[in-house]
Amino acid sequence: MLVSTRNPLNIGAAARAMSNFGFSHLRVVNPYGPAFREARSAVGAADILATAEQFKNVADAVADCTLVVATSAVGQRKIEHPLERLEQGARRIRRHLRSGLVALLFGSEKIGLTANQMSHAHFLMRIPTFEKNISMNLGQAVAVCLYELIRDVKAAKTAEKSTLASAEELERITRMLLETMRGSGYLARRPITDVEERIRRLVRRLKLPERDATVWFGILRQIVWKQRKDSQ
Amino acid sequence: MLVSTRNPLNIGAAARAMSNFGFSHLRVVNPYGPAFREARSAVGAADILATAEQFKNVADAVADCTLVVATSAVGQRKIEHPLERLEQGARRIRRHLRSGLVALLFGSEKIGLTANQMSHAHFLMRIPTFEKNISMNLGQAVAVCLYELIRDVKAAKTAEKSTLASAEELERITRMLLETMRGSGYLARRPITDVEERIRRLVRRLKLPERDATVWFGILRQIVWKQRKDSQ
Repeated sequence: MLVSTRNPLNIGAAARAMSNFGFSHLRVVNPYGPAFREARSAVGAADILATAEQFKNVADAVADCTLVVATSAVGQRKIEHPLERLEQGARRIRRHLRSGLVALLFGSEKIGLTANQMSHAHFLMRIPTFEKNISMNLGQAVAVCLYELIRDVKAAKTAEKSTLASAEELERITRMLLETMRGSGYLARRPITDVEERIRRLVRRLKLPERDATVWFGILRQIVWKQRKDSQ
Repeated sequence: MLVSTRNPLNIGAAARAMSNFGFSHLRVVNPYGPAFREARSAVGAADILATAEQFKNVADAVADCTLVVATSAVGQRKIEHPLERLEQGARRIRRHLRSGLVALLFGSEKIGLTANQMSHAHFLMRIPTFEKNISMNLGQAVAVCLYELIRDVKAAKTAEKSTLASAEELERITRMLLETMRGSGYLARRPITDVEERIRRLVRRLKLPERDATVWFGILRQIVWKQRKDSQ
């Protein structure tokens, strides 16, 4: 819910973030201009702008909501409300969303929400910005809040954990690497004690993925082949 | 690290988000125009733009970093890298930051990072956007990633947990409320069984803050006083 927004581009940016994170019900209270529905910044979110509901005041806009949350940078303001950091506030919002509508209020770019607008809220929520610069761009603030609402730390790790090369493959590579080091004269010029063990550990520290083991072995074998050919 | 950014305003927006979340070392690779250092969107972050380092290519820009992370919306792209969701990727970045420099790469507005630019990365990181609209505004994407890096769920709850009214105070209010109900004729018109117990539970369900107890008691007492006066 965007209250007294001055720049239509910011309404568009908020709509884009909503679309990115799967939210669709935008309400606009008393925007500065009527041009917001055509904001070009709403990339991929034209439908959200088209269906946005417009209200004259906060009371009407939040009337059907059972939880009202006001965002604020707080700063030097005197606070008359309970205040939550975004991390905890979002948890309360998510819990509430199972049973009712939640209004998330963002104030104007210059001054944020007025005390009167804030008084409709059950609690204030603060993005944990650094003291040196607490004032966020409106579109960025909306994006951060909505991201926190949908983030899921328990989400199945999508990372395809690359399987590591087997000990047998690592040993083949180790042997071939030692061979190239002999063939190139490396070992003759820099005699190392326990060379085999050192090189074996060196190769193990690579965390070589299984899918790359054959490639590495092939590269080394080709080097050895060339070394043998040249030394004939 | 912003790579091939076309719109200087987006560089400014990224700088503003960095400032909001306490980051300061901006690197810019091959920006479209040189005008970015004056971007008006960098509210409160002029120093970050002024000290931003400029590079010709990704290799030079990441040279002193020991972990390189490329952001990508992924989408239909064929991926050759391990991929992490932001929640998990950020955890790896935070761990790494204890011992070394991390580069976080953002590609151009239109096409993101090229395959060649990505190949410098140790892993790809994806903001968990919804499939219907995966393309985020650059400044918003930077804000969301940096927020995830500094977010702290264990942060001391800043919410001033309002102390609740004591049982004694609640009981005083209950008695006075019952009195007003009798005085107004409410109980005579709607006879309720176990009225005292019901009203007692009703008051307990309010979760009345301690600081408000006196006010509520005063309001009720005044009503009772008026009722008695009028019935004389």
